[in-house]
Amino acid sequence: MPGVKLMGNEDIAMLLYPGFTALDLVGPYHFFAGMMGARVHLVTNQTDLRPVESDMGLAIEPTVTLADCPQALTILFAPGGTDGTLAAARDPATIDFIRDRASHTQFVTSVCTGALILGRAGLLQGKRATTHWSVLPLLTQFDAEPVDARVVQDGNLITGAGVSAGLDFGLSIVARLRGQPYAAASMLTAEYHPEPPFEGGTLSSTPKNVSEPMTALFAPFVQEASKLRIVK
Amino acid sequence: MPGVKLMGNEDIAMLLYPGFTALDLVGPYHFFAGMMGARVHLVTNQTDLRPVESDMGLAIEPTVTLADCPQALTILFAPGGTDGTLAAARDPATIDFIRDRASHTQFVTSVCTGALILGRAGLLQGKRATTHWSVLPLLTQFDAEPVDARVVQDGNLITGAGVSAGLDFGLSIVARLRGQPYAAASMLTAEYHPEPPFEGGTLSSTPKNVSEPMTALFAPFVQEASKLRIVK
Repeated sequence: MPGVKLMGNEDIAMLLYPGFTALDLVGPYHFFAGMMGARVHLVTNQTDLRPVESDMGLAIEPTVTLADCPQALTILFAPGGTDGTLAAARDPATIDFIRDRASHTQFVTSVCTGALILGRAGLLQGKRATTHWSVLPLLTQFDAEPVDARVVQDGNLITGAGVSAGLDFGLSIVARLRGQPYAAASMLTAEYHPEPPFEGGTLSSTPKNVSEPMTALFAPFVQEASKLRIVK
Repeated sequence: MPGVKLMGNEDIAMLLYPGFTALDLVGPYHFFAGMMGARVHLVTNQTDLRPVESDMGLAIEPTVTLADCPQALTILFAPGGTDGTLAAARDPATIDFIRDRASHTQFVTSVCTGALILGRAGLLQGKRATTHWSVLPLLTQFDAEPVDARVVQDGNLITGAGVSAGLDFGLSIVARLRGQPYAAASMLTAEYHPEPPFEGGTLSSTPKNVSEPMTALFAPFVQEASKLRIVK
């Protein structure tokens, strides 16, 4: 098939830290790992290879530590979360790792509040980016331009909106790396023809009696996230 | 909020077996584990609690063995896969577990080819059900009526289509258990307003130059799956 790269040799690093949201990572993982020949490294910011517990409890086994992750990458990826993401964004070793690998990767990427980690590492400066709706306005504190969209690309930065946006994000990256027919094959394998059981999923499409308490629920996290700044 | 159950005490068992598809499980997990008070048990069919490797490599840590899984459940769930699913469907201990817990659960459920496991356990008999498109016609061999839909409920059986259908499936179950406003809150948290980057995800919406090689790729798996019958 023209424009399609069936076999590749991408090195893809996906960050795992305590309190990450599992679906933020597993959505794009499904499409990244489905690229024949790609090597996906699950990189823990813990000091050993014990499973990393997500925000809801489910734990994923990492394949490599920060120190042992390959230097040259095709994709560097950070998932989101809430309290765990704040801790990762404040962790010097994690930020050093993200900054270092970002200078040796084709695409710097995040889904959901993973953008806060990239932001603190200074990787959103002067760029258009997206993140989970709850913290979208905060991207300005990292000198980024917040964009209310599902997936936003600005140069080598590709960011996805909240949690489930990781599927749209992952597919769009596969299309970029391997061509659209390859991505269409992955889409068919994953039967990705979504049919949410009812309308919703954004602030504007959610009834106020639901969106207002949810916004209130996120307020303490947003308050803490609003204190993050680029690490000099 | 009327019709909403904020706090619950559901016991939910999600089966893990070598070669399961991680996204089949993590999609619904996100919505199940997001129900306040629900306990999600990740049940391994291995003999110990070592992480269970998925079809693409990513390994998830189980919380309990088949023997130690609670008896009375709100949801019993089987994810899909390919070769690993055939092995699980042929494993007597797995089928015994599924059958036993199915008789003590409110909902018997699957996503993707997880329906083959339920089918072999005799749980699809006389019911309408769905599964991954590649094996949908095979449901007749378990005396089920195949339905080409994203999520199908027939009595206490709820089945989802391939992989990504787990998100629609999970949300629809949350709506049933906790009321639609609760599910709308989960949907907003997960920002579930999907926007696939291009059209596709079903056989009919995928160009033939992509769908034909993919159908051929699945043929050996389908051939093996076609030999499965209900265990007497």
